[in-house]
Amino acid sequence: MPIRIDSRSADFASRFKAFLATKREVSADIETATRAIVDDVAARGDVALIEATRKFDRLSVDAAGLRFTAAEIDAAVEACDTATLDALNLARDRIELFHRRQLPKDDRFTDALGVELGSRWTAIEAVGLYVPGGSAAYPSSVLMNAVPAMVAGVARVVMVVPSPDGRINPLVLAAARLGGVSEIYRVGGAQAVAALAYGTATIAPVAKIVGPGNAYVAAAKRLVFGKVGIDMIAGPSEVLVIADDTGNAGWIAADLLAQAEHDANAQSILITDSDALAADVERAVDTQLATLPRADIARASWTDFGAIILVRSLGEAVTLADAIAAEHLEIMTADPESLAARIRNAGAIFLGPHTPEAIGDYVGGSNHVLPTARSARFSSGLGVLDFMKRTSILRCGPDQLRALGPAAMTLGKAEGLDAHARSVGVRLNLQ
Amino acid sequence: MPIRIDSRSADFASRFKAFLATKREVSADIETATRAIVDDVAARGDVALIEATRKFDRLSVDAAGLRFTAAEIDAAVEACDTATLDALNLARDRIELFHRRQLPKDDRFTDALGVELGSRWTAIEAVGLYVPGGSAAYPSSVLMNAVPAMVAGVARVVMVVPSPDGRINPLVLAAARLGGVSEIYRVGGAQAVAALAYGTATIAPVAKIVGPGNAYVAAAKRLVFGKVGIDMIAGPSEVLVIADDTGNAGWIAADLLAQAEHDANAQSILITDSDALAADVERAVDTQLATLPRADIARASWTDFGAIILVRSLGEAVTLADAIAAEHLEIMTADPESLAARIRNAGAIFLGPHTPEAIGDYVGGSNHVLPTARSARFSSGLGVLDFMKRTSILRCGPDQLRALGPAAMTLGKAEGLDAHARSVGVRLNLQ
Repeated sequence: MPIRIDSRSADFASRFKAFLATKREVSADIETATRAIVDDVAARGDVALIEATRKFDRLSVDAAGLRFTAAEIDAAVEACDTATLDALNLARDRIELFHRRQLPKDDRFTDALGVELGSRWTAIEAVGLYVPGGSAAYPSSVLMNAVPAMVAGVARVVMVVPSPDGRINPLVLAAARLGGVSEIYRVGGAQAVAALAYGTATIAPVAKIVGPGNAYVAAAKRLVFGKVGIDMIAGPSEVLVIADDTGNAGWIAADLLAQAEHDANAQSILITDSDALAADVERAVDTQLATLPRADIARASWTDFGAIILVRSLGEAVTLADAIAAEHLEIMTADPESLAARIRNAGAIFLGPHTPEAIGDYVGGSNHVLPTARSARFSSGLGVLDFMKRTSILRCGPDQLRALGPAAMTLGKAEGLDAHARSVGVRLNLQ
Repeated sequence: MPIRIDSRSADFASRFKAFLATKREVSADIETATRAIVDDVAARGDVALIEATRKFDRLSVDAAGLRFTAAEIDAAVEACDTATLDALNLARDRIELFHRRQLPKDDRFTDALGVELGSRWTAIEAVGLYVPGGSAAYPSSVLMNAVPAMVAGVARVVMVVPSPDGRINPLVLAAARLGGVSEIYRVGGAQAVAALAYGTATIAPVAKIVGPGNAYVAAAKRLVFGKVGIDMIAGPSEVLVIADDTGNAGWIAADLLAQAEHDANAQSILITDSDALAADVERAVDTQLATLPRADIARASWTDFGAIILVRSLGEAVTLADAIAAEHLEIMTADPESLAARIRNAGAIFLGPHTPEAIGDYVGGSNHVLPTARSARFSSGLGVLDFMKRTSILRCGPDQLRALGPAAMTLGKAEGLDAHARSVGVRLNLQ
């Protein structure tokens, strides 16, 4: 049974607080093991990378064989089903269109004193894209990471993807080609993250590493943070559905299960002001679970972390939604737009009954790499800005320096930084 | 003597590489100690915070006394020198003007299929601002952190600042008032970071923590990252000056020393194509050091980490500057603008002889919180976007779902996520 809490009950506040605090992941202490792998690759480069690949992926490869060749990628594309390639192409084009609108504009202006100021955006030169192997090797995620990098103008996008026992999902290679990835290496785990951060003879280092991975990959990203940039550390996925009595219980149940099938730690939450809908959704979930291929995973997620929250009004739902700060928020009410306008914290909002999250996962065009575990309170989904950086520009002439210099000298002296004051004073013949 | 390397010498490449790899900070292993403090505050709240404050800051305070009162802040403002307050006011106004231009615009559009898409920006609800105590308590940094938060629309900006032995710099409190800080608490160190992240009975938690601090503060920020957002982990400051024979040696020397006086680990670098200028700057540094109040610090920085790099051409300087990716880049050449346009990696660029970095540190208007330690390759200075987050919006009607749904179902099935496909199919009477 999922958790069921009701805002009309006396202990609601404490139960909701406990619900918010529920941990869905146990983080094993793997930092020591990860650090050893990272340090080894940093020190011994390709040799360590190849040894770790043999050990963890049971794959024997030499340095020359680390990179997928163009012929191998051609063959992978050939092996893919045409309908799937067409769908990936559609996704790619829509992701590109959406993300082109995120390209920032440079700003340059002259203020009333004549000081020239500005902000200039440039693409990061080289980015690494981590793609998990095995069952979590999602070609859609390759596109969601690679296309914004391409739109940003990143010259070199380096993908790493493990191929345990030599197996690789050809769709992942096809998506990489569609997404404009420059180089692909058959390595994974902490060793791949280290190779991207420190570089080896075969893999030139990158400046930033993005993409999801297992606990070792996440730990390695934390370790190399600072040496290179990283994106967020993704936790298990979650959806929050807010619905009133206009909601279709079968559709809502399907959406809750689409989230739950990802992972036993995923979380699906329904907030509704309708007792009847709540009961109908709960029944529909059980019915649909019976025929779902990944029923075991989905049932575990729904039982352990699923929740139905009954509220007196949709206004209450707004407050709870902001506290939950869901990665995905679906709104299926009579007026979803006005409810959405009142909610501050959500990674992505899906409006109305005909926008299941799965559309956004694949072909909507917006990004499906979104902040999890309540981090939508302070962070955003992946986008073009994650692949660029801003440089500020300042230019004074003699008149502007005369106008601003004395205040700068005053502050420098007040902070005990006399050399700061002098660097202005020496130009103004003031000391 | 600073390092002196010459691009005309045979071993230049290896010497430059070694120079780039120089570590300027030894990171002590303080994670265990920091974790104990953070866990204690998370578990015991105010009691642990007050104990740690007594232990580390030698300050006895009860829960009611943690927060600075309005009267205390009034008194601090009264205690400040008028000229310094005027300078802070000028800085505040100019920082606000510059940062207002960074406010992002929401985007909402309908594509050719009729799908509605969008990106919506909202301010983070509550932000914590760490301000160091003691000699590094810089009122200018308070403004550089608080004003962008205010411009972003953050409703609650909570400042923490230690007052060792009860001492506090009144200018820091005055700057907080000017910067629109909502609450100020006399706590610091890892315990203050933990209080901001987890909340105590007295200090409500925030969603993101920004601001520089010592190694314990940095370690605590790493530990709470995920629970809350954090800004970058700042390293020692650095400046790179690129100059040709039009450069004024005395002015350049003053700028190199303004950086060097910050900290013995700070770094000042000159790249020039003029042997004569290099020699003149080196002499001018020695001359100016003789009368500098913080000569010991500046000399240590210049001797240990300072560098003069001679190049054959300014084109070479571009390549080296991108590799160095300096926090601050001053360009004093005949045509600084065209050289700046060719450089990709820098936190902030100061153009021409009349723009010493100190102007940007205080009153230029751009932010002085900038990426250090080569991280300008992948990150930006602090700005309004650091205090906001973006939510994507998607809305399909029945026609749009019919147009996009089949491709989403194809991809869901290809990824083995049947419930994803079903959540679309159930709406289209397709399974």
